[in-house]
Amino acid sequence: MNRLVIIKIGGNVIDNPDALKRFLTSFGSIQGHKILIHGGGKIATQVAEKLGIATTMVEGRRITDQPMLDVVTMVYGGLVNKQIVAQLQSLGVDAIGLTGADANTVRSKKRAVGEIDYGFVGDIEEVNSGQIQYFIRQNLVPVFAPLTYERSGSLLNTNADTMASAIAVDTAIRNEVTLVYCFEKKGVLSDPTNDESVINELTPESYTDYKSRGIINKGMIPKLDNAFKALEKGVKQVIICHADQVAEAVNGGSGVGTVLRLAEEKA
Amino acid sequence: MNRLVIIKIGGNVIDNPDALKRFLTSFGSIQGHKILIHGGGKIATQVAEKLGIATTMVEGRRITDQPMLDVVTMVYGGLVNKQIVAQLQSLGVDAIGLTGADANTVRSKKRAVGEIDYGFVGDIEEVNSGQIQYFIRQNLVPVFAPLTYERSGSLLNTNADTMASAIAVDTAIRNEVTLVYCFEKKGVLSDPTNDESVINELTPESYTDYKSRGIINKGMIPKLDNAFKALEKGVKQVIICHADQVAEAVNGGSGVGTVLRLAEEKA
Repeated sequence: MNRLVIIKIGGNVIDNPDALKRFLTSFGSIQGHKILIHGGGKIATQVAEKLGIATTMVEGRRITDQPMLDVVTMVYGGLVNKQIVAQLQSLGVDAIGLTGADANTVRSKKRAVGEIDYGFVGDIEEVNSGQIQYFIRQNLVPVFAPLTYERSGSLLNTNADTMASAIAVDTAIRNEVTLVYCFEKKGVLSDPTNDESVINELTPESYTDYKSRGIINKGMIPKLDNAFKALEKGVKQVIICHADQVAEAVNGGSGVGTVLRLAEEKA
Repeated sequence: MNRLVIIKIGGNVIDNPDALKRFLTSFGSIQGHKILIHGGGKIATQVAEKLGIATTMVEGRRITDQPMLDVVTMVYGGLVNKQIVAQLQSLGVDAIGLTGADANTVRSKKRAVGEIDYGFVGDIEEVNSGQIQYFIRQNLVPVFAPLTYERSGSLLNTNADTMASAIAVDTAIRNEVTLVYCFEKKGVLSDPTNDESVINELTPESYTDYKSRGIINKGMIPKLDNAFKALEKGVKQVIICHADQVAEAVNGGSGVGTVLRLAEEKA
């Protein structure tokens, strides 16, 4: 099977043009098939504010009413996505910007209204991995904005972490997938006050051990739980690292980032 | 050769949700390979105004400074393009939204500063018709926003009529291309005060004749000159019609729209 690297970058990289440029250069240097999924960043909130649209966050998630859906469609699907694509093209990477609606790549369902009405937020129902495979076989590099759509024709705001994980799981049928979450730290830390205290490898066993000893902090647990679920569903490895170190981490640089696998690699 | 229908819709359709829905339903009913190119509409101006960015038009063309480039990237490349794609998907059309940067489909060059500095406006240098052919062969329906890019990695605002014509000419190598310009009239009129006075067919000879008799009005002349140039460069026919009548016009409905050909069709 071919190697496929799927990388998710968050708002902290997108909000900083220099950091984004460094990341894209590093991303461009990764050989072989690859996919990028980007988050939103603060630009959507800033644009919404200037347009007089209030931003409401509940438990870290954006409430997406119709005016806010228009804003994230503009900012994530337009500004951020197309600037990344154009920059990658200038670096010689044949990028193609996509939302889940484009070529029916990721279809979702509007989240049912429970205690909280999240508005136009989508929970992924189906990844069209055949279509994605067809792009990467043509040496195109898909760049996904965190937007999907439902059959009614509405776009839906979608969590970028979840989208990356869903795409990784579904493309793992045909590829040896490495899923990379880039963030502002060098990896999962054993001491939150020490940025150099990176845990280099996590297996389900060691993860359980770190959790029971209270070493891995609460904020990381949902992210890591999801990462292990992706491994159980066929993703080969998950890497959590700093955006600046993505190429080294993907190329197996020792001591770079945190690598999650179902079993320890034999030396 | 396969038939390929390339349709350009303007701002008047995009600015009216009902008209857009009617058009997209009609577009969806057209059989075979097809491409849509959309203009911008007034939304960009409205969004710019709310963001406190002044719109400057010179001879009907938008001056695109950096803040305005961001606005058109958001509105054309994001909001308008992705809403059209999601609506087409809901109609069963496997649409894929593109700017010229996506998959390197349309590359341009920033217009040189002459008497007027248009800013980030692109003049098309190269259409990657091989890539476009590859999409339509996979039964995808490309939907282009009027944005291209240059090698430096900058997006560029690009006239949608010109983009449609350039794509038509370059895809005409491999396809029998019909290029359709939809606008707010039923076709080229012999009497501007009578919306029913549609000229059904134009050849270079009859066009010259209409012009010399002052029957075709000034505003139409640049559009028609460009259309005849496209025919000379290999496009099979150009149709100018109302957005509501696009399917009938493409299917050769007699008396629908104005059909431009290099020679009269034999009965």
